[in-house]
Amino acid sequence: MYFSSILKKLSFDVDMWEPSTEDMKINPDFLAAREDYKGSPNVAGTLKGKGGGRSILLNGHIDVVPGGDNDWNDSPWSGKLEDGKIYGRGACDMKGGIIANVMAVKAIMDSGIQLNGDVIIESVIGEETGGAGTLSAISRGYKADGAIVPEPTDMQLCPVSMGVTWFRIIIKGLAAHGATSYLGVNAINKASMIVQKLNEFEAKRIKEIKHELYKHHPAPFSVNIGIIKGGIFPTSVPDEVIIEGRMSFSPDEEISEARRELENAVYGAAREDGWLKEHMPQIEWYGFCLNSGSVDKEHALVKTIADNYKYVKNDDPNIVGTPWGTDAGALIRYGNTPAVVFGPGPGGTAHKANEYVDVEKLIETTKIIACTILDWCGYEQ
Amino acid sequence: MYFSSILKKLSFDVDMWEPSTEDMKINPDFLAAREDYKGSPNVAGTLKGKGGGRSILLNGHIDVVPGGDNDWNDSPWSGKLEDGKIYGRGACDMKGGIIANVMAVKAIMDSGIQLNGDVIIESVIGEETGGAGTLSAISRGYKADGAIVPEPTDMQLCPVSMGVTWFRIIIKGLAAHGATSYLGVNAINKASMIVQKLNEFEAKRIKEIKHELYKHHPAPFSVNIGIIKGGIFPTSVPDEVIIEGRMSFSPDEEISEARRELENAVYGAAREDGWLKEHMPQIEWYGFCLNSGSVDKEHALVKTIADNYKYVKNDDPNIVGTPWGTDAGALIRYGNTPAVVFGPGPGGTAHKANEYVDVEKLIETTKIIACTILDWCGYEQ
Repeated sequence: MYFSSILKKLSFDVDMWEPSTEDMKINPDFLAAREDYKGSPNVAGTLKGKGGGRSILLNGHIDVVPGGDNDWNDSPWSGKLEDGKIYGRGACDMKGGIIANVMAVKAIMDSGIQLNGDVIIESVIGEETGGAGTLSAISRGYKADGAIVPEPTDMQLCPVSMGVTWFRIIIKGLAAHGATSYLGVNAINKASMIVQKLNEFEAKRIKEIKHELYKHHPAPFSVNIGIIKGGIFPTSVPDEVIIEGRMSFSPDEEISEARRELENAVYGAAREDGWLKEHMPQIEWYGFCLNSGSVDKEHALVKTIADNYKYVKNDDPNIVGTPWGTDAGALIRYGNTPAVVFGPGPGGTAHKANEYVDVEKLIETTKIIACTILDWCGYEQ
Repeated sequence: MYFSSILKKLSFDVDMWEPSTEDMKINPDFLAAREDYKGSPNVAGTLKGKGGGRSILLNGHIDVVPGGDNDWNDSPWSGKLEDGKIYGRGACDMKGGIIANVMAVKAIMDSGIQLNGDVIIESVIGEETGGAGTLSAISRGYKADGAIVPEPTDMQLCPVSMGVTWFRIIIKGLAAHGATSYLGVNAINKASMIVQKLNEFEAKRIKEIKHELYKHHPAPFSVNIGIIKGGIFPTSVPDEVIIEGRMSFSPDEEISEARRELENAVYGAAREDGWLKEHMPQIEWYGFCLNSGSVDKEHALVKTIADNYKYVKNDDPNIVGTPWGTDAGALIRYGNTPAVVFGPGPGGTAHKANEYVDVEKLIETTKIIACTILDWCGYEQ
C-alpha cells in the first residue's frame, strides 16, 4: 500500500494484485509455489510516455531474508544512518535499488521532462524464495524493451545472471543397534562418500566451466553443501541422511543439463558402492531455483548504462556476471525483456548482519538510472 | 512402590531411596548425572540368611528406553501374551530378568527352604542412561559375594561386559554465502573426511582387538557414528558440524586408553588438513558411559550358573561377552562384587518395536537362578 501510494503521487497508473500459483507456470522449473499469496501483493505502476520511445521496466523485489538478529550492532529494522551508510535488513538487497528506481523517475518528473517511452516500476514479492513475484508480473503482461534490476552489484554492470538451483539428496542406510552395527548400513558413512564425490564434482566444474563475465570470480559455478542431517541416536546405526545444497550454473548451460551432471556424479558414485547401487540416493530439485539469463554485453541497454556510468562516475563500469540468480533471468526468458542487473548495494553484506547501502552510491546509481531512462525512452523538454 | 510391596510380601527388608548425585562419584567416568533423582527411587530388599553362606545380589534395572510406538503391532505398553511370548517395552530389557530374580526367590521360600547366605534384590534406575541407580546402590553399601544381572543375553552366560562410551565431535568451518563459497570453509566437507577416518579407525580396531569371549561377534569393539548435524541454509557455507556416536571397547582396554585412541585418530586426521590443524575438532565424552567388567570364566559363580544351566537345559551354556555395557561393570569395579550377566530375553528385540520375552526361557532362567541361589548361598531344608 505504501509503495502503491508513492507511485500514485508520481502519477503512475498503479496495479496491485496478489499473485496466483497459475502465474508461475510460465517457468517449468519453478518449484517454490506457496499455497496462495494472500497478503503478499505485487505492485506495478505504469507511466505512459508520449509515444515513439522505448519502454523500460524497473524491477525490484520487496521481500527480504530473515533479520537474523544475533550479530547486528543495531536492530536489523533500525534503518540507522551512520557514516554515510543506511543499515538494516534489505538496505542493499534491495530496498536501496527500489528507491533508486523510484527517485530516478521522480527526478525526471520534477524537472518537467516528458518521456517518449513508457516506464514501469515493479515491486515484486518472493525473489528470495524463487522469483514468484516477477513471474506473476510477466504473466500479467508487464514486459518492456529493456529492464534494470538494481540488485546489490556494488555498481558493477551485469548483463548476465547465473543460474541457481537447490538440491536435496536422500541417502538410505539400514538401521541396526550400534552393538551389532555390522548388521546395518551406516547412512552417515555412505553420505560422507557422496559428499566427497560432490567435492570432486565441484572442483571439476570450477576448473572446466569458463565464462568471459566470470573471469574475476574464483569459483562461480559451485556446488555448496549447506545442510546435513541424519540419525537419531548415538547407539543406533542411522538409516537416512539428508543433504541439502545450492548448485550454481553458467548462463551457457541449460538448467536440465547442469542438474543432470550433478545427478550423474551422485549416481555414478553410488553405482560403485555395493549397497548404494541397490539403494540409489534420491535427488530432489526443490525450493529455490532462479534460471540464468544473458543479455549481450554489446546490447544497447548495456551500452546506455555504461555511458551514463562514465558520465556520472568519470570511469568505465566493471562489466561482469552476477554471483547469484536474479529476476533478470525470468524477465529475459519468460518476459522477452532484455534485463540488466545494476544496483548500489554491496552484495557482500546481503543476507548478513549489518547489511547496509552506501548513500553516495545510492545517489550515483539513481543518477545513472535516471540518465539511462532519459536516453532509453527518449524525451522532449 | 509396587516392587517394594512385592519384596515386603516375600519378607525382604526393603529400602527405597532416591539416588543423590553424590552417589555416582565412585565412578570417575560417570557423565550423565541428572540434577536430581526425585521420583526415580531405587529399591533394594535384603533377605538375611541364617549365616555361614555366600551372599548373592540379584540386580535389575527398572528403566526402559522410550516406547517408540510406530512399528509396534500393539501398544508398547500392552503386555500382551501371544504364542508363548510377552510383548512390550521392557519385556526383555529387563522386566523379564527382574521377575526371574523375584520368582526364583519366591520359589525357594514357597518350598520352605532357608538360605545360609543373604539375598539382595535390587530394582535400579537409570541403566539406559549410564547406570546411576547401580552406582547409588553400591554407594549405599549394597555389595555381595556374587551378583547376577539378568539382562537379555538370550540365556547366554556372560562373565564379561564390554565398555561403552558416547562421544561428540564438533568440527568447525568458516561461514560464507554460497555465492562466494571460496571465502568460507565447509564444515560438512571437513566432517566427511573425519567420518572416513573414523571408519578406518574402526576397521583397524575390529581387526586388531581380540578377546576370547568375543570370538563369535564379527565386530564387537566398534565405533558407531549415530548422528550428524550441520548447517542451517542450503545457500550458506556451514560453519559447524556435530557428530555423535558410540564407541565400545574391550574389557582388556582401559577406558582412558580407548578414548585416547579415538582422539588420536581424529586429531591425527585433523593435523593433516590445512584448516583443521589450526581449528582442531573438539571431542567430548558425554552422556552414556558404562565401563567394562570381567569375571574370570572359571570363577565359582560362573561354574555354578553353568552347572545349573546344564541341570535345567541338559546342555552347556554359551559363555560369551555381552555386546553392550551393563551394570555388571560397576558392580565389579566399584562394588567389589563379581557379577555375571545371564538373562532370558532375546537382546535382538531390545530397544526395538515388538520387544518380547519368551515365557519358556523366562521359566528356565528362573529355575537356573533359583538353583544357583541355593548352591551359592547354601541352605538347610
